[in-house]
Amino acid sequence: MSDAKPEPQLEEIREAECLEVLAGNRLGRIAIVVGGQPLIFPVNYALSGRIIVFRTAAGSKLFNAPEARVAFEIDGYDEQTGVGWSVMVQGIAHDATESYDDISWAAHAVLPRPMAPGPKPYQVAIEPTSITGRRFSGPGSD
Amino acid sequence: MSDAKPEPQLEEIREAECLEVLAGNRLGRIAIVVGGQPLIFPVNYALSGRIIVFRTAAGSKLFNAPEARVAFEIDGYDEQTGVGWSVMVQGIAHDATESYDDISWAAHAVLPRPMAPGPKPYQVAIEPTSITGRRFSGPGSD
Repeated sequence: MSDAKPEPQLEEIREAECLEVLAGNRLGRIAIVVGGQPLIFPVNYALSGRIIVFRTAAGSKLFNAPEARVAFEIDGYDEQTGVGWSVMVQGIAHDATESYDDISWAAHAVLPRPMAPGPKPYQVAIEPTSITGRRFSGPGSD
Repeated sequence: MSDAKPEPQLEEIREAECLEVLAGNRLGRIAIVVGGQPLIFPVNYALSGRIIVFRTAAGSKLFNAPEARVAFEIDGYDEQTGVGWSVMVQGIAHDATESYDDISWAAHAVLPRPMAPGPKPYQVAIEPTSITGRRFSGPGSD
């Protein structure tokens, strides 16, 4: 009421732009559900078309994700401009390591590079059922 | 094999240090499960003791989280040093807005400031059942 700040705005990011943003990043987080408890893990990923691909170790919780419903998210916030954004992929995780279906072929076309140490021989591909994003700018709310 | 890089290392972060890291940040992500589908949303939060507190709008998916099992996560990666870390809180979400139990009192002691626009009159408190973290350094794996 008392100043000339621009009105804060919240806008949807369309899927085509979500995919551009996904292609331009490499660190996201995956959520899986284990025994009713959601868990979140950071993963390095690569994008192949609309498929999110990451690598994991045998016996890891993520290795147990395949054929389950998962969420994948990336986000960012620029302190200078006050612009924040997030993109969320909902989908089904597949073990693409030794599979040769369409999803797995897409996964084999890219090579995600994990920054965390340790062997991660298994390749997991997330087949998206929904890709959504939002961006906000301006001052936060009270 | 061919150079003098330090061996990559992965270490657990103990709960006391996890709490320090949580206290030093303000942007995390919460995972909730809606109809079997995990969803991830970025949220600005504040820490009150061991309680994670954030604000949300009426009718939002997060507003429906209370009394459900949720996960909350923060992470970071330093490109210069190659050090990455993540902290995950597993717990139960409570609507603390007009409640006066111990969890809600703890929640009322802090004021998380959402950066995203729009009124967020409801206060959600995550009572942790588990707080874990890990840190890695050195080159990633192949």
